Amino acid sequence: MVKLNTNFRNLKESYLFSGVARRIREFKAANPSADIIRLSIGDVTRPLTAPVVDALVKASKEMGVAETFRGYGDEQGYGFLQLKIKEYYQKTANVTVEQDEIFISDGAKSDIGNFTDMFDTDNIVLVPDPVYPVYVDSNLMDGRKIVYIQGCEANGFLPLPEEKTQADIIYLCSPNNPTGAVYTREQLKVWVDFALKKGAIILFDAAYESFISDSSLPRSIFEVEGAKDCAVEFCSLSKTAGFTGTRCGYTVVPKNIVVDGVSLNRMWLRRQTTKFNGTSYIVQRGAEAVFTSEGYASCRQSIAYYMENARMIASTLDKLGIWHTGGVNSPYIWLRCGMDSWDYFDYLLREANVAGTPGSGFGKCGEGYFRLTAFNTKERTAEALARIAALYNR
Amino acid sequence: MVKLNTNFRNLKESYLFSGVARRIREFKAANPSADIIRLSIGDVTRPLTAPVVDALVKASKEMGVAETFRGYGDEQGYGFLQLKIKEYYQKTANVTVEQDEIFISDGAKSDIGNFTDMFDTDNIVLVPDPVYPVYVDSNLMDGRKIVYIQGCEANGFLPLPEEKTQADIIYLCSPNNPTGAVYTREQLKVWVDFALKKGAIILFDAAYESFISDSSLPRSIFEVEGAKDCAVEFCSLSKTAGFTGTRCGYTVVPKNIVVDGVSLNRMWLRRQTTKFNGTSYIVQRGAEAVFTSEGYASCRQSIAYYMENARMIASTLDKLGIWHTGGVNSPYIWLRCGMDSWDYFDYLLREANVAGTPGSGFGKCGEGYFRLTAFNTKERTAEALARIAALYNR
Repeated sequence: MVKLNTNFRNLKESYLFSGVARRIREFKAANPSADIIRLSIGDVTRPLTAPVVDALVKASKEMGVAETFRGYGDEQGYGFLQLKIKEYYQKTANVTVEQDEIFISDGAKSDIGNFTDMFDTDNIVLVPDPVYPVYVDSNLMDGRKIVYIQGCEANGFLPLPEEKTQADIIYLCSPNNPTGAVYTREQLKVWVDFALKKGAIILFDAAYESFISDSSLPRSIFEVEGAKDCAVEFCSLSKTAGFTGTRCGYTVVPKNIVVDGVSLNRMWLRRQTTKFNGTSYIVQRGAEAVFTSEGYASCRQSIAYYMENARMIASTLDKLGIWHTGGVNSPYIWLRCGMDSWDYFDYLLREANVAGTPGSGFGKCGEGYFRLTAFNTKERTAEALARIAALYNR
Repeated sequence: MVKLNTNFRNLKESYLFSGVARRIREFKAANPSADIIRLSIGDVTRPLTAPVVDALVKASKEMGVAETFRGYGDEQGYGFLQLKIKEYYQKTANVTVEQDEIFISDGAKSDIGNFTDMFDTDNIVLVPDPVYPVYVDSNLMDGRKIVYIQGCEANGFLPLPEEKTQADIIYLCSPNNPTGAVYTREQLKVWVDFALKKGAIILFDAAYESFISDSSLPRSIFEVEGAKDCAVEFCSLSKTAGFTGTRCGYTVVPKNIVVDGVSLNRMWLRRQTTKFNGTSYIVQRGAEAVFTSEGYASCRQSIAYYMENARMIASTLDKLGIWHTGGVNSPYIWLRCGMDSWDYFDYLLREANVAGTPGSGFGKCGEGYFRLTAFNTKERTAEALARIAALYNR
């Protein structure tokens, strides 16, 4: 008799964003004329830029010609893309990573979720609260013990470990989803030193690194001394280049990390060669174009567009006297809503027809807070803000 | 102190096909002038067909225009593709599957590997030997007990369970990789009845279903009564439409399968929404084109091309008096090599500069056998066969 994985019973019924989508759908069904503006899910809205589209079209056509057709590529990705990412690290973060430390995938969510395959179930997983739900859910599925470190207004939602903090595996996300807060280099150094002392591994989610405009803030954990001995970094083109529907990410697993004589890098390669078959050649060519000077410049324009939205949101919240963080080096704005955050979700949806994401969906410490995102159009964002301002000024 | 997943120690050092590739690379380095013909890895060589390329190009261009741009899609895939696959099942196998039983992914290898997340480690996994290495390796990584059921010449490499056979999870692959043997409907019925009696789940790999030309043979396990109560089916466009480098597969998880009150379909949805973010929109549009009448006809031409290669290989082996199976409803030919199969690999590579895959890489029962594939060009396949014939006639 087959036995299912009973750890799934410990998961909440639905994935947070599915739950948000369902409530919006139900509200829309009950109020068909409502003009709902979504500042909720972190999906981009700007189209792929011309250099990227050109590369995708070219690669698609190559696949139709015997001489240029490509079958299976290496599971860890094509060298042409790994080398571009290597250059990108050098240029943006002044960090040297080796080609065989870079693994290309269909996205950071897959890699973050699948990376738990690397670890024994008997590990203490330290997760900042509030947090992107995938870190928690993927570990609950394996039955690992999760402990939380609390983000709050007092620490700017950037918690740091104490001597007594327990952790074998540590998840960090900076710029943070959902709070938009960004660790300084000094703060990340505290985490790296802590991990090295404890023999812990840091799983660092850098999916939003390209939104950092303040050059004093680190875009990669590898900017911090010692990080290559204890940290794995996940990154994605979803937000950097609008690849949410195109699907491409990459993970850097330093070769320095060896536990009990086992190389984490070789172990991840073994996992990927066994349970993955590489990212679409066409998509990898599109991704390559992101890292050309022309492609990169075009993607920066989209990011600048979103960051103007973030600035507008933050400015409106300031005028309304609403406490918030994020929005400067991040597309997320995290605000104090002063009530149960699902109630606030319903309130904002009902009264302003604006959808956001309730903070409690990201953890207990998110209760009383709410996430807005900068990914809608400028016009719709402005309209949403006008409605929110009118609601508060009623 | 972090503890890695020690089950990885039970894996052989390298994935079989990486090992084959390495030996070929080393031989080539030592013999730079050797003209090596690869009848080894199961990768296609024919380009994508025109209707598929047109769809890929069109979708790539849509991604560059705000009005037609697509961000995140549902993790389980777009409805337009699910519905095409539903039609395909109806047409080719006379099987009705529901749209929400179909999950689109980046390929069958990912789904087969990741599906072990569904199961407790405490299950007995029954695997036919010889077998595609992913079934074994992905379960070894989780620490599950694996038992084998032996394929041999006497049973045509199509083993069937006995009353005493133990199994909670059963892997079947038909048309088989590596042997090319195909279960009849009656044989699959034995497996389905066995699974229902034991409360076991069958994980059925149908990646090669499109190579079946004999209409009396089942192209889906769901052609067998009762299968929707106990079987999950994995399929792929890699071989059906040459998508090995384009990446698209699909998995059918029947809603009928409920264990201890838990729906396996809902559980897989929860897994995918948590640890996957959907397949590239562009690729899904390419896949949709495969299932149009024009697209399907064009893909059938590529399959016919490969099957002519298979026929040539089988015919040469017949003339040489070499026992073999497969090659009729499958792109794989499995032959008796009469020596240690890695020795035969080296012998064939050295003496004929032809690369195949050693049977022992697929399991103990594969020792003494060897796999050739029909995926090279007609000209190169003919040349390889001439060299093999010359070697045997020396």
